[in-house]
Amino acid sequence: MIDIEQANHTAVTRMMSARPILRTVATARDVIPGMRDDLLLHAGPPITWERASGPMKGAIVGALIFEGRATDWDSAEKLVATGQISLEPCHEHDAVGPMAGVTSASMQVYVLENVTLGNKAYSNLNEGYGKVLRYGAYSPEVLDKLRWMNEVMGPMLAEALALSEDGLDIRALLAESLHMGDEGHNRNKAGSLLYTARLAPLIAQTSASTAEKARVLQFLADNALSVLNPVMAACKAMADAGHGVAGSTIMTTMARNGTDLGIRVSGLGGRWFTGPVGQPDGLYFPGYTAADASGDIGDSTITETAGIGAFAMASAPAIVTFISGTPEMAVNTTLEMYEITTAEHTAFTIPVLGFRGTPVGVDIRKVVELGIRPQINTGIAHKDPGVGQVGAGLVLPPMNVFEEALLAFAEQYGLLED
Amino acid sequence: MIDIEQANHTAVTRMMSARPILRTVATARDVIPGMRDDLLLHAGPPITWERASGPMKGAIVGALIFEGRATDWDSAEKLVATGQISLEPCHEHDAVGPMAGVTSASMQVYVLENVTLGNKAYSNLNEGYGKVLRYGAYSPEVLDKLRWMNEVMGPMLAEALALSEDGLDIRALLAESLHMGDEGHNRNKAGSLLYTARLAPLIAQTSASTAEKARVLQFLADNALSVLNPVMAACKAMADAGHGVAGSTIMTTMARNGTDLGIRVSGLGGRWFTGPVGQPDGLYFPGYTAADASGDIGDSTITETAGIGAFAMASAPAIVTFISGTPEMAVNTTLEMYEITTAEHTAFTIPVLGFRGTPVGVDIRKVVELGIRPQINTGIAHKDPGVGQVGAGLVLPPMNVFEEALLAFAEQYGLLED
Repeated sequence: MIDIEQANHTAVTRMMSARPILRTVATARDVIPGMRDDLLLHAGPPITWERASGPMKGAIVGALIFEGRATDWDSAEKLVATGQISLEPCHEHDAVGPMAGVTSASMQVYVLENVTLGNKAYSNLNEGYGKVLRYGAYSPEVLDKLRWMNEVMGPMLAEALALSEDGLDIRALLAESLHMGDEGHNRNKAGSLLYTARLAPLIAQTSASTAEKARVLQFLADNALSVLNPVMAACKAMADAGHGVAGSTIMTTMARNGTDLGIRVSGLGGRWFTGPVGQPDGLYFPGYTAADASGDIGDSTITETAGIGAFAMASAPAIVTFISGTPEMAVNTTLEMYEITTAEHTAFTIPVLGFRGTPVGVDIRKVVELGIRPQINTGIAHKDPGVGQVGAGLVLPPMNVFEEALLAFAEQYGLLED
Repeated sequence: MIDIEQANHTAVTRMMSARPILRTVATARDVIPGMRDDLLLHAGPPITWERASGPMKGAIVGALIFEGRATDWDSAEKLVATGQISLEPCHEHDAVGPMAGVTSASMQVYVLENVTLGNKAYSNLNEGYGKVLRYGAYSPEVLDKLRWMNEVMGPMLAEALALSEDGLDIRALLAESLHMGDEGHNRNKAGSLLYTARLAPLIAQTSASTAEKARVLQFLADNALSVLNPVMAACKAMADAGHGVAGSTIMTTMARNGTDLGIRVSGLGGRWFTGPVGQPDGLYFPGYTAADASGDIGDSTITETAGIGAFAMASAPAIVTFISGTPEMAVNTTLEMYEITTAEHTAFTIPVLGFRGTPVGVDIRKVVELGIRPQINTGIAHKDPGVGQVGAGLVLPPMNVFEEALLAFAEQYGLLED
C-alpha cells in the first residue's frame, strides 16, 4: 500500500531543501541535455505549429531567423511543418523560459545547480521590455538585441560569475526579495536590484570595454525582470528535486504554451495532463483590452509550482497597481493557497503573515477535493505575434488537468475500485 | 490673528512638494554654508565637550585626528575645551549626519538641491558597518577607511553623478523603496540597492581604475545603509522647505546628540527646545544589553520629521527582525502617527494601507494635547566611544520639548491669556 502522505512529505522536503546556485552562462547546445541544432525548446506542454498561438509562432520564426535557418515567416513555417525542425518543451530538457520560452541551440542560457541534490536547470536571458522574442516579436531590432545579449552580455555575465567564488545563491536572493515586496513571478523588482548589485562589482572586473560594461549594467538595472529567468531556473531546479517520488500527488510542473496548460505530477513520471489555457483577468496597458490578449503563456508558473509567485502575493502588496485588485486580495490569495498545499516553506517567509512560510507543494488531491485551483500571476501577451505585453493579471489553470491527473494516479497506483 | 491651520497647511505642502535631487559630492568646506577649518559639525542640538556622550566625544577626536589637528584624545580634547575648535549642530548649516554626525571641513559630503524651492542640504558619506566614526571609533583602520572614502569614493561618486544628466531624484527613490519594504530610517535595504543599481552604470564610466570601481561598487552593494545619508539630506531639504512659516506649529527638526534631544518648529525660527534623550528599547546584538547603550543619538530622526522612518513602518514589516516587535506593531505605529500629523504625504504611499500617504508634519499642538509623541526607529550606539552599534530599536523624544515649544509659540504669537 502506498503512503501518499509520506511520499508527499518526501517530495516537498526535497523541493524546500534544494539550493540552486547560478553557476554560469553558456551556449544552450553545450549545456542543455538533448539540445541540438534542429530543435527549438518552447514553453508549456508539447505543441505543434498548427495549434500554436500567435506569440508562440512569432517566437519560433524569430529563433529560426536568429539561427540563420530561415529568412522569414514562410520559410520558418516550412521548416517546422515539415519536421526539419522539432519542437519540444523546455520542461523536458531541464529548462524553462518566460512567455513563448523559445530557446534555440546558439542561445546563451543561465546554468543553475541545485547543490543539495546535484540536478541542474537552465533558462534563457531576459530581454527586457518592448518588442521582444518572448512575446513573438522577430523584427531586425529584436534579433539585434538578441545578438548583443548573446555576444556581449552572456559572455560578460559568464566571466563575472567565474570571478564569484561560490556563484550566486538564488534561493537566498529570493528569500530576501520576498521581504522586499516581490512575489518572484510578476514582481521581481527587488530581486533584480539585488541581482544587479551583486553582479556589478564582478562585471566591473571583467575584460569587457568600459562602454560595454556600462551598457550591460544599465540594461540589468533598468529591467525589473532581469532576475526573472535565473529565478525561474531556480524554481525549476527546486520543483525537479521533488519530482519522481513514487506515490506523490504533488504537482511538479505547471506550464502554458499559449494554447494548452499542462501539469505534471511527482509520482506520475513525465506524463502531461493538459487543458485549454485561461484568459488572464487584470489590468491592460493603455490602448489594449481583453480582446487583444493571447491565451495564458509561459513556463513562469514554475514559480507558483515552487511556492512563490501568486502563492507569495501577500509579500507584494504593491503588485496590485500592476495586476489590479487590493492588498487584502493579495493576502487572501496566499491564505487560500495554504488550503491546497503540503507544507509551509522553510526558506521563504512572509513578514506580514508573521513570517509564516509560503504555501508550497500543490497536492492535486486537495485541488480536486476543494475545487480550489492554484492561482497564477502573469503578464498578458498580445494575441498577435510581435506586439508584446499588453497587461498583467491573474489566471487559473483549467480544472480538468487536476481531475485527469488524479484519475491517472488512481489507475497507476491501483486505487480504483473494480 | 494668526491662522495656524493655514500656516501648517503651507508648511506641510512645502515639505511634500520639495523634490531633492542628489547633484554631486564635494568637500564640506567648499559647499556647506559657514563651514570652516576650526569648526566641527555634529548631530543634534548644541553640545559642549563636557556634556557630550562617549560616541560623540570619540567621533570629535577621530575627526580632529583625520584633519591632522590632533594626534590623540588628549590633544583633541584640549582643542575643543579651549575653544580653538568650535562645535555647532549640522542642522544649523543645512546639514545632517547619522549617529554622532561629526563632519569636518575636509570631508566629502553629498550635495542635494530641492529643485522646487532651491534650498540645499548636505550629509557626509556612509561608512558601512563595524568600527566607524559615527559610533565614535577613531582607530587607524577607521581613519584609513575615511581617507579612502574621501580620496577615492567621494570623487568617483562626484564623477559618476556628473555623467547623470539630471542627478538622482532621491524622493522618487524613496517612494519606490517604501514599496519595497523600507521605511527609510532603520531599513534602507531596497533604497541602497536602487542607489547602487542607478550608480553602477555611471561608476563604470568614470576614469577610476577597474580595481577601484569594483571596490566602490562592492562597498555600496554590501552596505544596506549606503543610501541613508543622501536620504537624510533629502529629508533635511524637505523639512527645511517647511521651516520658517509664520504661525506654523509644525516640527521641522528633531535631532539628538547622545545627551539632549532637540526640536525646532516652523514658526519659531532657529530656537531649539531640548530635553534628555531616551534609551532605545529594542534588540541587542549578541553579547550586548541595554546597560551598554548610549543615549539616543543622531540626526537620522530627520526621516520621521519628513514623514518616513517609524512613521512609514507599516511599509516595512520585515524590520521587526531587527528592532523587535511584530508586523502588527509596525502597522499600528504608522496608524498612531496620523493622530499627531497634519497631512498624508502625496509622494510617499504605503501599499498595505491601501496606498494611503504616510503621516507627515508633526503638529506640536496635537502631541501635547493627545500625549502621543513621534515614534523613532533607531540604531543603538555603545555608550563607550569606538565600540559601534550594539542594537536597534524604538525610542521616544521627551515630552517637555513639545510642551516648552508650545508655550514659546503661545508667547511669541500673543496667545497667552493675561
